[in-house]
Amino acid sequence: MPLRLDYSNMMISPGGIDPKTWTTAGKRFADTMRGFDSLRKSGAVGFVDLPDDRRLLEQVTRFSAAARGSYDDVVILGIGGSALGPIALRTALRPSGWNMLDEKARGGFPRLQVLDNVDPETIAALLDRLQLARTLFIVTSKSGGTAETMAQFLIVHDRIVAAKLDMTKQMVFVTDPKQGALRPLAERLRVPALDIPPSVGGRFSVLSPVGTLPAALIGIDVKSLLAGAGEMARRCENPELGTNPAGVYALLQWLADTQLKKSVAVFMPYSDPLRDFAAWFVQLWAESLGKKRADGSSVGSTPIAALGATDQHAQVQLFMEGPADKTVTFVAVKERRTDVKIPAAFADVRELGYLAGHTLAELIDIEQRATAGALARRERPNMTIHLDRVDAAHVGELMMFLEIATAYAGQLYGIDAFNQPGVELGKQFAYALLGRPGADAAKKEWDSLPRSDPRWSV
Amino acid sequence: MPLRLDYSNMMISPGGIDPKTWTTAGKRFADTMRGFDSLRKSGAVGFVDLPDDRRLLEQVTRFSAAARGSYDDVVILGIGGSALGPIALRTALRPSGWNMLDEKARGGFPRLQVLDNVDPETIAALLDRLQLARTLFIVTSKSGGTAETMAQFLIVHDRIVAAKLDMTKQMVFVTDPKQGALRPLAERLRVPALDIPPSVGGRFSVLSPVGTLPAALIGIDVKSLLAGAGEMARRCENPELGTNPAGVYALLQWLADTQLKKSVAVFMPYSDPLRDFAAWFVQLWAESLGKKRADGSSVGSTPIAALGATDQHAQVQLFMEGPADKTVTFVAVKERRTDVKIPAAFADVRELGYLAGHTLAELIDIEQRATAGALARRERPNMTIHLDRVDAAHVGELMMFLEIATAYAGQLYGIDAFNQPGVELGKQFAYALLGRPGADAAKKEWDSLPRSDPRWSV
Repeated sequence: MPLRLDYSNMMISPGGIDPKTWTTAGKRFADTMRGFDSLRKSGAVGFVDLPDDRRLLEQVTRFSAAARGSYDDVVILGIGGSALGPIALRTALRPSGWNMLDEKARGGFPRLQVLDNVDPETIAALLDRLQLARTLFIVTSKSGGTAETMAQFLIVHDRIVAAKLDMTKQMVFVTDPKQGALRPLAERLRVPALDIPPSVGGRFSVLSPVGTLPAALIGIDVKSLLAGAGEMARRCENPELGTNPAGVYALLQWLADTQLKKSVAVFMPYSDPLRDFAAWFVQLWAESLGKKRADGSSVGSTPIAALGATDQHAQVQLFMEGPADKTVTFVAVKERRTDVKIPAAFADVRELGYLAGHTLAELIDIEQRATAGALARRERPNMTIHLDRVDAAHVGELMMFLEIATAYAGQLYGIDAFNQPGVELGKQFAYALLGRPGADAAKKEWDSLPRSDPRWSV
Repeated sequence: MPLRLDYSNMMISPGGIDPKTWTTAGKRFADTMRGFDSLRKSGAVGFVDLPDDRRLLEQVTRFSAAARGSYDDVVILGIGGSALGPIALRTALRPSGWNMLDEKARGGFPRLQVLDNVDPETIAALLDRLQLARTLFIVTSKSGGTAETMAQFLIVHDRIVAAKLDMTKQMVFVTDPKQGALRPLAERLRVPALDIPPSVGGRFSVLSPVGTLPAALIGIDVKSLLAGAGEMARRCENPELGTNPAGVYALLQWLADTQLKKSVAVFMPYSDPLRDFAAWFVQLWAESLGKKRADGSSVGSTPIAALGATDQHAQVQLFMEGPADKTVTFVAVKERRTDVKIPAAFADVRELGYLAGHTLAELIDIEQRATAGALARRERPNMTIHLDRVDAAHVGELMMFLEIATAYAGQLYGIDAFNQPGVELGKQFAYALLGRPGADAAKKEWDSLPRSDPRWSV
């Protein structure tokens, strides 16, 4: 069954969205759709068309088939959108603890490691651990200008040269088909390069080779992933709000933020396979919607990653009794890939006896329902995304659902969901401090900032 | 050098705290200290005294010395405070990728795995992977009433019995010395049990055997950890705000929330070893301060975990241009345990040439400073905790600093930082759904909740 969003607990009274407000806002949805459609026509939202891009799928299928058996480790050099999607896919769609399994348990597929930072300890430790000749490095950057990824590339390139290995066998790029620094570098080094379509930005790129190449290399069913995503894309072509799940989700989140002043959007799957999925969503939502509008005002709700049942013992106290500034989106999973029965023992011990006979799947599911119910009882709006199971098709569906919802929310907020101008100043300051040519203006601005004040230090 | 907090960027104008407000609020700090001291005398804040508890240290030292060489895996069954502290310590104080290193690289110390959820897939996969006879399970629960941990215990207990192994060799409990379900169970099973002092709650327990036992078992220098924490505890005995770092931090956070309406507190270390530390802080802050006051009003800022430089490509756009409702606490690290030089190559490529000759430690440090400066330039207050290095002493210091600051903040907000009444209703609903005896009232309340409404589903 396709994914289903139950938002009954968003419509609670008091605390939730008033049905009249909902109806009125719903009438505006046609505008949102129109805005989205014209963006789509202008070529700004290529992510919606990724599921149908046969050429890209063929690039990935051909490359991964040829690579089969040649590598024990695949290492992504990438940060942000280049890292979060692949990590989410690995955790969701490969057996638990994938990188700690032996080759047999991995079905002969390689481990997948992701270098998503420039801490020297992590990189040095990983490079020491790898057998270089059995490692494929995927360098993922659309522009080829990402300082962190380029620094990693220089280090890895040097190691491969020093080990006298064949660069064309140990490296593959995923980058813009024409623009940027990596494309000419690929030609120079004769390294294969797969495409990120120009119309697809980093945080919307998981269904391009950014996500599908590493996924295919570790044995994930990429075709199903794309098929699930494609079904959701078609489901969201419906201009009628009532049957467009991404439309409903975007409108709920936008109303909660702008009308109910619920500025924090918690995303909380009850599923270990979806443990890293929430971090992918956080980037998608935060970097797309946290923006200044043309009039100078700031918008965008703040996404927070949580995990059930774990976070019932960490963040739920705050969600339940702290400021009423949050909504919670649960993800509930109907069928788990395996289940474990809780054995009957110590029936005489009050704290243990009642658990006997239940299974862990029942327990985690009951905890989700109990937490959702308790939040609603405390006038804290929440909603639940129901997934039949965590498999490639459903994960693809869920990703496309959230991507389209994010794009719609951009329309509702009246901002460009596809740029990230706010990170430019920090980048320029870093260039200035690193001595990159052309950063003179940034250097001047940096030098004019007030220095650290010894009065304000302890 | 001890940890230093530079809060110059919290005092920026406009956007930050006005120096006059600071001075006025500072005069109230004596009250905060008095409140904290009387709590301490009443025995409610035992965590401050953990560094000096020689009896507990001896329990841990003796147990871990006797266990040396007997186990390949240590597995914690625990959730919330029982899991987050040990995970943070492992990531901070053991070499990168600890659980993926072979025995030699681990110096003969075991891996450390933490079962902090009840997803059947994770538990089944881990139990399949382990060699039971070479595994020590630490069951951590103060009350012995935590459903998730007790379910795990029943499953693991059953496996150990089925494998005809000696329970007293494969299991150890960490629990209250007198109260709760685990203590009598320890006696019944003859399983060793270490203490969580009655005055120490779960999220303040990392410096008790909850954290120190697993830490010692995997070779972390627990003595230095406690010594660093003890130094911070003494430093914070000073009633003068200007020399009490936890006091300054609590007051800054409280003023930012209540006066500047900055209700989101981001915690962002620039260090992979501190990657999991932020999640530990999130629980500490969220569960301690997200509370209803006696007058029914809700308080508590919302903590968010971030990681530098990684989150510059995920969350920083929102921090920089989204609603001005956030402060950011950076953690900067002076000396890394290792460094990697960025090789000079492709000097002709603009995107690569400027990186040559720098090291990764320089790069990540420059990125931290650039991001802090850019935030300040955009009128977004932030502060930086400076650590000389990530070693046991400094991590202990940082943990105690944040624990005391949280306790102080509880005083400032006028709430009890040491309970978690908000999670009770969800627990009761879960008991009702699981059929636990005595949950009749909860069952009635559950049945009276409005059902899911088909109108609000898509």
